[in-house]
Amino acid sequence: MKLIKNGYVLTMNADKEIFEHGDVLVDGSVLKEIGQINEADYPGAEVIDAEGKIVMPGLVNTHVHLNQQLGRGIADDVDLLTWLRERIWPYESNMTEEDVYVSALACCAELIRSGVTTFAEAGGHGIDAMAKAITESGLRGILSRSTMDSGEGLPASWVEPTDVCLQKQVDHYHKWNNTVDGRIRYWFNIRTIFNATDELLVETKKLADQFNAGIHMHIAEIEDEVQLVKDTRGATTAEHLGNLGVLGKNLLSVHTVYMSELELNLYQEHGVKVSHNPGAAMKVLGFPKIPEMLEKGICVAIGTDGAPANNRMDMFQEMHLTSLIHKGRLADPQVVPAYQVLEMATRNGAQALLWEDEIGSLEVGKKADLIIVNPDDFGSLPLHNPVGNLVYSMSSSRVESSMCNGQWVMKGRKLVHIDENVLIEQMKKHGREIIERAGIVL
Amino acid sequence: MKLIKNGYVLTMNADKEIFEHGDVLVDGSVLKEIGQINEADYPGAEVIDAEGKIVMPGLVNTHVHLNQQLGRGIADDVDLLTWLRERIWPYESNMTEEDVYVSALACCAELIRSGVTTFAEAGGHGIDAMAKAITESGLRGILSRSTMDSGEGLPASWVEPTDVCLQKQVDHYHKWNNTVDGRIRYWFNIRTIFNATDELLVETKKLADQFNAGIHMHIAEIEDEVQLVKDTRGATTAEHLGNLGVLGKNLLSVHTVYMSELELNLYQEHGVKVSHNPGAAMKVLGFPKIPEMLEKGICVAIGTDGAPANNRMDMFQEMHLTSLIHKGRLADPQVVPAYQVLEMATRNGAQALLWEDEIGSLEVGKKADLIIVNPDDFGSLPLHNPVGNLVYSMSSSRVESSMCNGQWVMKGRKLVHIDENVLIEQMKKHGREIIERAGIVL
Repeated sequence: MKLIKNGYVLTMNADKEIFEHGDVLVDGSVLKEIGQINEADYPGAEVIDAEGKIVMPGLVNTHVHLNQQLGRGIADDVDLLTWLRERIWPYESNMTEEDVYVSALACCAELIRSGVTTFAEAGGHGIDAMAKAITESGLRGILSRSTMDSGEGLPASWVEPTDVCLQKQVDHYHKWNNTVDGRIRYWFNIRTIFNATDELLVETKKLADQFNAGIHMHIAEIEDEVQLVKDTRGATTAEHLGNLGVLGKNLLSVHTVYMSELELNLYQEHGVKVSHNPGAAMKVLGFPKIPEMLEKGICVAIGTDGAPANNRMDMFQEMHLTSLIHKGRLADPQVVPAYQVLEMATRNGAQALLWEDEIGSLEVGKKADLIIVNPDDFGSLPLHNPVGNLVYSMSSSRVESSMCNGQWVMKGRKLVHIDENVLIEQMKKHGREIIERAGIVL
Repeated sequence: MKLIKNGYVLTMNADKEIFEHGDVLVDGSVLKEIGQINEADYPGAEVIDAEGKIVMPGLVNTHVHLNQQLGRGIADDVDLLTWLRERIWPYESNMTEEDVYVSALACCAELIRSGVTTFAEAGGHGIDAMAKAITESGLRGILSRSTMDSGEGLPASWVEPTDVCLQKQVDHYHKWNNTVDGRIRYWFNIRTIFNATDELLVETKKLADQFNAGIHMHIAEIEDEVQLVKDTRGATTAEHLGNLGVLGKNLLSVHTVYMSELELNLYQEHGVKVSHNPGAAMKVLGFPKIPEMLEKGICVAIGTDGAPANNRMDMFQEMHLTSLIHKGRLADPQVVPAYQVLEMATRNGAQALLWEDEIGSLEVGKKADLIIVNPDDFGSLPLHNPVGNLVYSMSSSRVESSMCNGQWVMKGRKLVHIDENVLIEQMKKHGREIIERAGIVL
């Protein structure tokens, strides 16, 4: 057992309970008690003094590309077509299994360092290598395979017949869902509407419903998408998905920038979840209507996107941007306040990933996924307002320790399961090799 | 002498020279040599191995409120009138000299940690206490006194007769300008147009010209300002300043959000400098037209603003936002590219502060103000693109060492002249005391 004493415990539960001097008891993988706990009642427990520190749920990153981690910096300041065709596709299609493993482990390392305990892979190749990295890192994650049965200009090996697309995902589901002490789950994937026939869309939805799994999909990313889908399929992306019966509680709609009022209402009606990626939105896409979605009661969570798009896999950064982007866009300092941002990064994230029964808040019986944040730094003090400072002032370097599934994954900024020096050298080596193999010139 | 070997030397000079494996020699307070330097020629020099690291000019923060540092978090998610009247004015007007000293030193500490070697104070009270903090910290800074000869709802002691406003500044100028080995300079100040009669504006400009000093002024911050100035003085802020003859190369126009095309042209014509504070712009003001200003050739530099407005005094953060805010606003991933952002944070900053003869780039004969950045971290590797990674990926925690005026102010993340633990405790104590004294309730 582990007993965390005297922290500022931000439970993020439905009642928004905060214990200014609270204790948290962890038994195995679960939270056994929260509140005032007598140390003497639990002899032998590992006791952690959290005096002056913040104890809160681990952050949930709802959209990240594990295998893009070694492509950081290969696609800055370029237009979207160059980004995709001359940089990302050549990069991703030239990775070996070993590259994917190093990339995924490096991504997990950055995620842990920034307070993430659960993430959802956006859809990549090399599921087994990714699973190996997640297993080793100690994190909780949802895997998803990049799936395309159509599309122009793609690497040839990426486009597969519809039935192959579906079968491979079912196979992965059986192999990986609910494995590694329940830390790994598996979801279905549509990379974008450009890469999916209507048949793939409809059959994916059927399988996801059948397996109680989610569907991870990039939706309404750029203005051209909206127009092109309208021209070729008779309705804009979200409307078209609605017409096909694909909208539902198990659809995670990523980015979701160019949306009509009608489409937002469809999302509200069908309980579609949105993954807002403010860094990528600002850097390459445009500003989505997040306050308007929240106003409608749509569940909006936060994601980082991948390293060539953001370029930081840092949820503290994304929390900050989530608030600022909309305050600035609407010239209203009161929209998307700090506590709402924390909800988006914790409980909304859990809900978006269909995992709210186990994670997203500190509650007795839920999994022990938590972080300890130390505000004693020139960039975070004074602590007049812990919730505000978490969102507006603190960088992820203030995350001191992190626990996932009841096990420490970082203690005192040191990763518990990853050899940091070895991984740093591997990142350099494999990063260089992929770029050379792909012939990418910056 | 100090010899920095084998760094990726980003000179930021007019020719945009980069030495991929370069050396930098520091003699006293100045840069003596840059390029390939033979170690044997300088026996006895302190040799620093910068292999795999980036060596670049220290960042220039053109707008920061030293005495707001202990007010971090007191004014989040509130409208502007509440921000000013119920939080900032009570806070600032209830500070003792000792509070100002602690606040200023804490701000210097955060600035050093984020790679800043030069900053400009926005205009506060307690100049001597600020000067003491700058002197101790080792930084280079321009002081400026909060100056108001009119305005409504202000703390009574803040509004002074015009001649007193001017005389106090002249006295401070004589006491502090070009002191502490040339690290401290003094500038004239107009807090806002709401707090300045036309007489104060005109006389301030005369004095600034006479003393070869700059004028630090918040301009066109909110839409209401533009309208009110038009209603009461017959023209919008920048136009009105033009009519009075106040626009010129020694005017630093901060924020500058709500500007007409005509006003931008006036800035271009008169060589007015702009301090862009993207964090504060997003959090409380709105998006200024920075790419449009750059297009016109206006010198735009970057600033952090104060802790209750931003809330991070972190120029790495501001560099990131400077690029993202405008890419997102214009939905164009190519505007404000990384190198241009670095220029804004270094050489443009120096120019905006009328200090480009001594700082802002690594050039022989200039002052040795530089930072060493270590990219070996999960959040910054691989280093396919050092310039891009500096702006898009790295947090300020990658700044390993910093030198100002030829002297180390930080080495291996440890502040050289500041007792960190003592200052952390002082921040907590004085922060608490000011809030209590001011009766601020969050």
